[in-house]
Amino acid sequence: MSVITLTTDFGDLYPAAMKAVVLRINPDAKIVDITHSISRAGIREGAFALYSLVPYFPVKTVHVAVVDPGVGTFRRALAIKAGETGREQFFVGPDNGLLIPAARCLGEMEVYEITNRDLLLKSGISATFHGRDIFAPVGAHLSKGMPIEGVGHRVSDFVDLDFGYFGVDGPFLMGKVVFADSFGNVITNIPEDAILQFCTFGSKVEVNGRKVPFVRSYGFVGQEDALALIGSHGFLEIAINQGSAALQFGLRGGDPVAIKIL
Amino acid sequence: MSVITLTTDFGDLYPAAMKAVVLRINPDAKIVDITHSISRAGIREGAFALYSLVPYFPVKTVHVAVVDPGVGTFRRALAIKAGETGREQFFVGPDNGLLIPAARCLGEMEVYEITNRDLLLKSGISATFHGRDIFAPVGAHLSKGMPIEGVGHRVSDFVDLDFGYFGVDGPFLMGKVVFADSFGNVITNIPEDAILQFCTFGSKVEVNGRKVPFVRSYGFVGQEDALALIGSHGFLEIAINQGSAALQFGLRGGDPVAIKIL
Amino acid sequence: MSVITLTTDFGDLYPAAMKAVVLRINPDAKIVDITHSISRAGIREGAFALYSLVPYFPVKTVHVAVVDPGVGTFRRALAIKAGETGREQFFVGPDNGLLIPAARCLGEMEVYEITNRDLLLKSGISATFHGRDIFAPVGAHLSKGMPIEGVGHRVSDFVDLDFGYFGVDGPFLMGKVVFADSFGNVITNIPEDAILQFCTFGSKVEVNGRKVPFVRSYGFVGQEDALALIGSHGFLEIAINQGSAALQFGLRGGDPVAIKIL
Repeated sequence: MSVITLTTDFGDLYPAAMKAVVLRINPDAKIVDITHSISRAGIREGAFALYSLVPYFPVKTVHVAVVDPGVGTFRRALAIKAGETGREQFFVGPDNGLLIPAARCLGEMEVYEITNRDLLLKSGISATFHGRDIFAPVGAHLSKGMPIEGVGHRVSDFVDLDFGYFGVDGPFLMGKVVFADSFGNVITNIPEDAILQFCTFGSKVEVNGRKVPFVRSYGFVGQEDALALIGSHGFLEIAINQGSAALQFGLRGGDPVAIKIL
Repeated sequence: MSVITLTTDFGDLYPAAMKAVVLRINPDAKIVDITHSISRAGIREGAFALYSLVPYFPVKTVHVAVVDPGVGTFRRALAIKAGETGREQFFVGPDNGLLIPAARCLGEMEVYEITNRDLLLKSGISATFHGRDIFAPVGAHLSKGMPIEGVGHRVSDFVDLDFGYFGVDGPFLMGKVVFADSFGNVITNIPEDAILQFCTFGSKVEVNGRKVPFVRSYGFVGQEDALALIGSHGFLEIAINQGSAALQFGLRGGDPVAIKIL
Repeated sequence: MSVITLTTDFGDLYPAAMKAVVLRINPDAKIVDITHSISRAGIREGAFALYSLVPYFPVKTVHVAVVDPGVGTFRRALAIKAGETGREQFFVGPDNGLLIPAARCLGEMEVYEITNRDLLLKSGISATFHGRDIFAPVGAHLSKGMPIEGVGHRVSDFVDLDFGYFGVDGPFLMGKVVFADSFGNVITNIPEDAILQFCTFGSKVEVNGRKVPFVRSYGFVGQEDALALIGSHGFLEIAINQGSAALQFGLRGGDPVAIKIL
């Protein structure tokens, strides 16, 4: 088996070109779309999407991710092996931080710059579509078992990225929005552990000044009521049952969140 | 071969988590997205989408469907075997009626409550994402040939669902809207047989007071003209050629439809 | 291996019916969605989407494309073999020009009318969904290696289609918009060769009266600045870096474009 995932801000049509290139190199690849709806140039948002799903994929999965406002300029192309041998997964994409949180959450990582031109699309490299011309073919070769050393040389000065600071400040848990999903659920960078030190299910918290119940799931509040919960990603989430918290709380990626423990 | 389909109201990103879980358990699974755009909590709409497609799938296909406003509360999780042996298909999802019309249309069905915790996601069950943590892994095990008795015990008091009453009332065929597709075609619960007893192609009918031709296909009327036809699902449909009948007739799921035979 | 691609204006749900039919006939098929978001009845737009991706697919790929405003009327159904033996790909769809530019770009083509009813969906042919009932099953049979002569008889009077005239007129390169992608990038029918005869990267051009830089990629201009570039399809494209040129220039499929060389 060889699973290849795709995470991009490409919308429609362009992902199919990446799949075509993958299947020419590795006819046995199983391709899974993670999402192609990342906001344009939303590197942190793409990094979170990938990070939140990687733990569920099989060993040796190759994740090709392309949110790449610098395409065609001078940013490097990377391939990463992450996780101890026997549990490793691979990552291919631009050197802008996009791959790092997902790779790091698997444990140790080895980062390589892609310089081996023999791996790239034979018909030439466009200036605008490295997803098709560079990242898809390199991912396909890795999924066939090519050792990662084959892509180029190891580097340590890659662009890093994290989901920002969270911590306690008086009666507040301070954090940040990392992702608003297609329902308008607002996912913060405050992990399950941190919130459960201060709150129990059934209590109330104040989110940016608005009181909401902290409960286990949507069905514990009425339709269109607000709630705070531990989302399926393992982070504190703000949601509206069958509505959009992103709209109602006016929150989007990068915005600060202050959770007051009542 | 082992085909697994997914039908959800999850939108983007979350379906990929279900696919990851499936592929870890059954690397040979072929995963087909039926739709992830069911309206939130649109159980009847999801039931219709599944029902309309099931007849076309191969024997032993496993359908995982999750439109589940009660997730994390006390509703049961079900697995169903439907159809005579040698033509059977399987269904996995919440006990809210979602699976029933599709399963029933294949013939006899055996309904089981999922209670075998050994089948579920090893890393723990979230309160909000049973699609990933319960339904996807159970579906994957069924697709590998696990006998359905392995999921738990048989039940008969499952939540039932149908697409509502239709029938004749004077000069009217009375029915209901069961689905409005992404084009705005309005699909009713009035089956082909019933309408063809009263109408022939080329005649006119009145749909909620508006006269429209009853024809075989879109191309028989002008662009942006209304029509009634037997849709590809085998039900009476109201459509606008290259337009949205849902908008023009103001119809959506659950609304009554009165067809006057002229 | 047998890759089958799907290109339609079907939106959601209906493509899954085509996949079900394919997998019943050819359980080993690998199905790739090219797009299901072609504008309704957008034959030229669908033709371009297919044309732009075909070169990247493996030999023997079968492309099933359905943008078919004449479904259920009297238009013919076609299957095409294109490209020299050993590099051939196949095409299945309506006789309205949709398949022709993609097939032609592979070299010689043999065009057949589909008349062999044994290949079609056993449960009957609907008047509205030939994608499911005719094109998907024929595509699946071709992907299993059925010789194309098996579909019916050869024809030469198929409906032709091209992307329109482009050429020089005084200081202008005159062409047409063939596609606006999901980002609002406007793709013209002016090929790389033609534009590079007159311009070098770093120079400026006037697009419908507005001066924009002609550069290699988005990252060479500021955010929300307009640019002209050679897109990944190999044609002159008008774009806004992280914005929509389709909106800002008011351009859509079929509109004329005048590029003044400065």
